Amino acid sequence: MVFKKITLIGTSEESFDAAADDAIDRAEDTLENVYWVEVEEFGVELDSAADREYQAEVEVAFELEG
Amino acid sequence: MVFKKITLIGTSEESFDAAADDAIDRAEDTLENVYWVEVEEFGVELDSAADREYQAEVEVAFELEG
Amino acid sequence: MVFKKITLIGTSEESFDAAADDAIDRAEDTLENVYWVEVEEFGVELDSAADREYQAEVEVAFELEG
Amino acid sequence: MVFKKITLIGTSEESFDAAADDAIDRAEDTLENVYWVEVEEFGVELDSAADREYQAEVEVAFELEG
Amino acid sequence: MVFKKITLIGTSEESFDAAADDAIDRAEDTLENVYWVEVEEFGVELDSAADREYQAEVEVAFELEG
Amino acid sequence: MVFKKITLIGTSEESFDAAADDAIDRAEDTLENVYWVEVEEFGVELDSAADREYQAEVEVAFELEG
Amino acid sequence: MVFKKITLIGTSEESFDAAADDAIDRAEDTLENVYWVEVEEFGVELDSAADREYQAEVEVAFELEG
Amino acid sequence: MVFKKITLIGTSEESFDAAADDAIDRAEDTLENVYWVEVEEFGVELDSAADREYQAEVEVAFELEG
Amino acid sequence: MVFKKITLIGTSEESFDAAADDAIDRAEDTLENVYWVEVEEFGVELDSAADREYQAEVEVAFELEG
Amino acid sequence: MVFKKITLIGTSEESFDAAADDAIDRAEDTLENVYWVEVEEFGVELDSAADREYQAEVEVAFELEG
Amino acid sequence: MVFKKITLIGTSEESFDAAADDAIDRAEDTLENVYWVEVEEFGVELDSAADREYQAEVEVAFELEG
Amino acid sequence: MVFKKITLIGTSEESFDAAADDAIDRAEDTLENVYWVEVEEFGVELDSAADREYQAEVEVAFELEG
Repeated sequence: MVFKKITLIGTSEESFDAAADDAIDRAEDTLENVYWVEVEEFGVELDSAADREYQAEVEVAFELEG
Repeated sequence: MVFKKITLIGTSEESFDAAADDAIDRAEDTLENVYWVEVEEFGVELDSAADREYQAEVEVAFELEG
Repeated sequence: MVFKKITLIGTSEESFDAAADDAIDRAEDTLENVYWVEVEEFGVELDSAADREYQAEVEVAFELEG
Repeated sequence: MVFKKITLIGTSEESFDAAADDAIDRAEDTLENVYWVEVEEFGVELDSAADREYQAEVEVAFELEG
Repeated sequence: MVFKKITLIGTSEESFDAAADDAIDRAEDTLENVYWVEVEEFGVELDSAADREYQAEVEVAFELEG
Repeated sequence: MVFKKITLIGTSEESFDAAADDAIDRAEDTLENVYWVEVEEFGVELDSAADREYQAEVEVAFELEG
Repeated sequence: MVFKKITLIGTSEESFDAAADDAIDRAEDTLENVYWVEVEEFGVELDSAADREYQAEVEVAFELEG
Repeated sequence: MVFKKITLIGTSEESFDAAADDAIDRAEDTLENVYWVEVEEFGVELDSAADREYQAEVEVAFELEG
Repeated sequence: MVFKKITLIGTSEESFDAAADDAIDRAEDTLENVYWVEVEEFGVELDSAADREYQAEVEVAFELEG
Repeated sequence: MVFKKITLIGTSEESFDAAADDAIDRAEDTLENVYWVEVEEFGVELDSAADREYQAEVEVAFELEG
Repeated sequence: MVFKKITLIGTSEESFDAAADDAIDRAEDTLENVYWVEVEEFGVELDSAADREYQAEVEVAFELEG
Repeated sequence: MVFKKITLIGTSEESFDAAADDAIDRAEDTLENVYWVEVEEFGVELDSAADREYQAEVEVAFELEG
């Protein structure tokens, strides 16, 4: 059994939780067998967004098929 | 005055805040004189849980009795 | 174009999100051209507060005027 | 010449060495021109495995074709 | 569900794997519900030991009873 | 909006700047919507290269299509 | 032979050395076979103390009985 | 003698060296007695700039007047 | 309640404690409501000083007025 | 009593343990009074070696003669 | 095959690249079989130099003779 | 001008300051042109010493002759 980890950055205008969920939603849409997620960093983008854009950088671990 | 720090991991199906509160609740149930808490890491468990399980690893500092 | 970063710690009795927003609100009240924010650390203060005081240490980046 | 790095987690019921080899085997099965590997972390999973499952998280560097 | 993490250092005159197993054996002898283990550091003690003493510092995570 | 980050290592016989540009060139050849790049590490390879080979390991962030 | 590490924070109104000694004194009062201590962090508390309170966070390693 | 450190991010369309110089130029324009500079991070901004914008985050140390 | 953190480097020809106190003295001379201090780094300067100059880099946290 | 630390990288075609032993063997051949060793990093070289070359970077501490 | 790593700091009044080359030149003048170099830190000295002195701290790895 | 850094660990039965001075004394006895020292770690050895042995691991930077 081998896992692979990729790094995604989700965004939300609501909260850090929603930003993390945004990245996890994307991972689950395109990957089978997602096992766990580790938060690497939280940030907020202010200049190029009308509102505050919460960002969550996460590592997503999923099992590779045999 | 001497403090001790222990590491707990709280869990929640709702949010990172609730996961951290879960660990703090547990600390306050069993320890006197909890002073402060530092978040070490946030994660999400997906495989062995029906829903997303948010996890918060925290260090809890409390005062040892003299 | 040169940016400067300063470190603020916002507080809230509600959540980590609100603590981060507290720091960002303060930054936007006193600084022009805030571009982005990086979360450095989350913590909770328990001893000197009647309720749990959530804290968010953030680095705030803003553009210096030319 | 440009290299790319990906992160894999190999597993073994025998040892950390075998867990690292498991990840490298997988990399060499699917990638050309693997150059080097850096161990990021060793761990052991106990709850969901009948035996101890040794895990090795590694970064695998391989050359991209021109 | 709340987990607690403790730090143990196992030793062996054979290998790093055996040193890690030494710490895990000890954890499983005295704790229920050990879930996972993270290796923090490997070292070798030479001065006060007749042979090389391999050491593995590990964090052991176990579930606290409700 | 979700971003993905990948890790590339560019090389050059001239300078660290050129090595970083090498990796960014490659990223822009194969990816749409590259937003930013973070330098992770600079190094120089001497043994297997006739000249000094400057290397720049960078993380490249790009937007995933919706 | 298995060691365990715990984290203590000693305090003193005199110096960082005295704060570290405070934590070590406490460890030796309640633990057999303390082997070594690693300083994790020095700090000074100013608000809730009449004088400056020097603090030393240390990890204390002791041998577990067989 | 007491020093203070501040964090600036210089930018350039040419190179990392020029981006660092940009921040140092700014520091020397507004501060007396700048002693040394430490590079914290190099990056490149691609999305909101017509060209590649090299960025250098630096800590600038200067002596405070007595 | 919002705190700000600044970085100072105190110096002394006597000891690390005195160097840290030097920075804290300076902070308290010019700032209201200093709450706590974290030591970032200790060093010793030898070349440009007749004697050994002990240095303590500290982060000073103080409350911003509302 | 003063110790010095040097950094060696041992290699082996067998295992990480053997690579660490390779570096320790070398240290003991040329140095008196080696006290302890800390593993800094494990890696595997694949391109320039016919087989996998396991590498262990270690810090070796030895006592300097008075 | 055993490698050793040493830490050098090269200097230049021109650029970070030239400072790194300065350290590598020195290493190659006095050591056989230099294999690779890792940049640890870039800095700039301003006070004791008429011009800006760019500095590059590098780790140099070379093969020890058998 | 090229500097070299070496790592020494000084010891003292009195204090961390004295342990650091012990390492600096040794460096100045055997090296010309020592410029600065960075403290890497403080620790205390308890088991193999009758009294507490304070230890200071320091990096010593000195100028290499041209």
